[in-house]
Amino acid sequence: MAMNSSQDAADIILHSGHILSNPDVGEVMPHGMTIIKDHAFIEVNVPWDPGIRANKVIDCTNCLIMPGMVNCHTHCGMGLLRGLADDMPLDTWLHRFIFPVENQWVKPEFVYLGCLVSMAEMVLNGITTCADGYYFMESAARAAITIGMRAVVAQGILDVPTPDVQDPARCLDRAMEFLERCTRHELIRPALFCHSPYLCSPATLTAAAETAKNHSLLLFCHVAETEDEVRSIRARYNASPVAHLLNLGILGQNFVAVHCTHVDPAEMDMIAETQTKVVHCPESNMKLASGAAPIVQMLHRDICVGLGTDSAASNNDLDMMAEMRTAALLAKLVASDPAALDAPTVVRMATIQGARVLGMSDMVGSLEPGKRADVAVIDMTGMHLTPLYDTISHLVYCGRGSDVRDVIIDGQLVVRNREIQTVDQEEIKGRARETSREIKAGL
Amino acid sequence: MAMNSSQDAADIILHSGHILSNPDVGEVMPHGMTIIKDHAFIEVNVPWDPGIRANKVIDCTNCLIMPGMVNCHTHCGMGLLRGLADDMPLDTWLHRFIFPVENQWVKPEFVYLGCLVSMAEMVLNGITTCADGYYFMESAARAAITIGMRAVVAQGILDVPTPDVQDPARCLDRAMEFLERCTRHELIRPALFCHSPYLCSPATLTAAAETAKNHSLLLFCHVAETEDEVRSIRARYNASPVAHLLNLGILGQNFVAVHCTHVDPAEMDMIAETQTKVVHCPESNMKLASGAAPIVQMLHRDICVGLGTDSAASNNDLDMMAEMRTAALLAKLVASDPAALDAPTVVRMATIQGARVLGMSDMVGSLEPGKRADVAVIDMTGMHLTPLYDTISHLVYCGRGSDVRDVIIDGQLVVRNREIQTVDQEEIKGRARETSREIKAGL
Repeated sequence: MAMNSSQDAADIILHSGHILSNPDVGEVMPHGMTIIKDHAFIEVNVPWDPGIRANKVIDCTNCLIMPGMVNCHTHCGMGLLRGLADDMPLDTWLHRFIFPVENQWVKPEFVYLGCLVSMAEMVLNGITTCADGYYFMESAARAAITIGMRAVVAQGILDVPTPDVQDPARCLDRAMEFLERCTRHELIRPALFCHSPYLCSPATLTAAAETAKNHSLLLFCHVAETEDEVRSIRARYNASPVAHLLNLGILGQNFVAVHCTHVDPAEMDMIAETQTKVVHCPESNMKLASGAAPIVQMLHRDICVGLGTDSAASNNDLDMMAEMRTAALLAKLVASDPAALDAPTVVRMATIQGARVLGMSDMVGSLEPGKRADVAVIDMTGMHLTPLYDTISHLVYCGRGSDVRDVIIDGQLVVRNREIQTVDQEEIKGRARETSREIKAGL
Repeated sequence: MAMNSSQDAADIILHSGHILSNPDVGEVMPHGMTIIKDHAFIEVNVPWDPGIRANKVIDCTNCLIMPGMVNCHTHCGMGLLRGLADDMPLDTWLHRFIFPVENQWVKPEFVYLGCLVSMAEMVLNGITTCADGYYFMESAARAAITIGMRAVVAQGILDVPTPDVQDPARCLDRAMEFLERCTRHELIRPALFCHSPYLCSPATLTAAAETAKNHSLLLFCHVAETEDEVRSIRARYNASPVAHLLNLGILGQNFVAVHCTHVDPAEMDMIAETQTKVVHCPESNMKLASGAAPIVQMLHRDICVGLGTDSAASNNDLDMMAEMRTAALLAKLVASDPAALDAPTVVRMATIQGARVLGMSDMVGSLEPGKRADVAVIDMTGMHLTPLYDTISHLVYCGRGSDVRDVIIDGQLVVRNREIQTVDQEEIKGRARETSREIKAGL
């Protein structure tokens, strides 16, 4: 696959950086060159040859070239509700703020603008793929294409009236409508999102699972997020949330169980045996006081666990560097073991494992010739990163979103020198501020 | 105190920013002007008058003007050991890495350079005061003056050989020597740091407390950091670490108990009754798997609790914005209450309460006419801060050190547009990298 100067010019060359090509291995190789052409990697780590022509040649001296991060759980459309209501009991948060505001405001254009804010933030933070679940997901797909971000866009399905579907009996029809309408695009994968076992009936869950199976789609679901949920599902179905979903025949390798904060060893065995995927959202779980998922025990069972930020309304930023750090710190605290969930493991969760959760590890999650070119270039020269003994450790324990310098998604340079290239950031911020003023005035 | 255009020029004017002057109240006032002259605030929040002359006029539109943060616990001299050894059991970390490296490397110039790295990072992160404890603290004082940072420099006292004192019998003599030698300077307050009840005998602790009392100095001590420590102190003295210190007559308003991870209600009562100060270091406690301090219960008892990052070897950054966030998230998780340790409370801990812990609240910790001019100007325009409903909430749940734009300490502009004005950052980084290569080669 090697190119030489007599061939067509490459699209982008990254040179002189340290390269983390395969997070499963975790080795960082010094001073390599990465060649991108036709949306994909031609070479990942070859000696630099200044003779090779490229449309863009980017010097990555003192930077880490790594796979773009994969955010396995968020609700981008809530971007305009960032920090609307913090530090309050869940009930107050939901019923006094989130639900009324959603009912009044959430429409296709609101979701589009919220997604632009969330996705612009994510790409600036080195996140190249997200799994998004909310209402009006045609808008999320449109925003992802505008930003140039890879996205799994999962249409929300709930047995209660939503801004999207006033009549809950129509929630599956609406999902089918979404699947028909959603733009076909290289960056977009449609999917379904059943809110939870407490807001979706067994009939809805099984119908959604059937649709997902027939269309080869992922089915996401919040599972065992809080103790209240576990109590409620046990009371209604005489089974834990995980056992309830197993009984319905829904668990499996295309099912993504988000949170799993409260799962016992037997439930983890069910998850492992069915190859169900899990998304860990440590900051959201802490901020909402939901609990701490037993991630170390899940990894011992070889459960495929990715990381998610959750939405800007419950985090409140979409920064996977911060999320990696919190995941590592929380796991150590919970396990009473400073060696638990080490930095290489958590970087793996934020990249290739996340890609596996989303069924996209053949395309993204590592830097390999033939894979789609999703890359983050991290500036490792900050005072807070000095000196540097171990790049992976620094990434997790000292890194922050603002250290991300350049981002390439599907071969397109989306962020360069910390500036988004695809959209007018200031215009998005201005529109977001305007909408937030209107929301605030109506509270 | 108001100035008008006919008087002498002010030193610095900050205008058009949102102002958090008093974290005890927590109100953010829009569009004020702050006037600094002769190291102190002349006015904190008056309407902008372009007629007032100043040597520097700084437009703070869309920024938050807040008290510089107070980092109540760190070991700056360990700056060169940042990320040297992560994700390992405490014993391995200490005995295989930290102690051997310290024994070989820690000398006055090593501490000076380590302090330059740590303090440069801190001022870039909006921290204007730190409480530092380590060896060769004359070097820490020198570094703080070089950077232009306010520092409590506390000489370490241990009943074991250290890089500073080979003969433990001399540890108190060495502390006296430090008190004589330490540079007298507006920015510097000398203090003493007994390592812990397990590395300091009752005789050493009481002698250090006596010296501190006679010289009106603060006495710091790591207290009840780990369960192992609690077991060991109970076995040796038939008392918990806090009760042991109470029995020795050491607790009191000039005693700063760092960590207090494992304290029960009776011990919290002892801390409250003696007006002993506490420093909470949530990230270090999580990373080393030490535990979670019962901060909410301490605050219910009106115990004065500040925040600390601990050192770059156990955190691994010195970012109080991240520390505030982790403190808030951890408290909610531990209390199973999303309303626990709300954003205004944690901002208070990071500013005025920190100043109270260090006995400096008459000088710093809030913006008030007559107080020393220690200010952080936070750029609130990042995409991760958009939109903005609540400034204080954003500071804690979305802010990061890189949002700090300008920093003034004792009336001196130390950081402007995210660049340190007092030292050559690149030169410090270069020397730090050189030393780290030598350390790494010797491991």
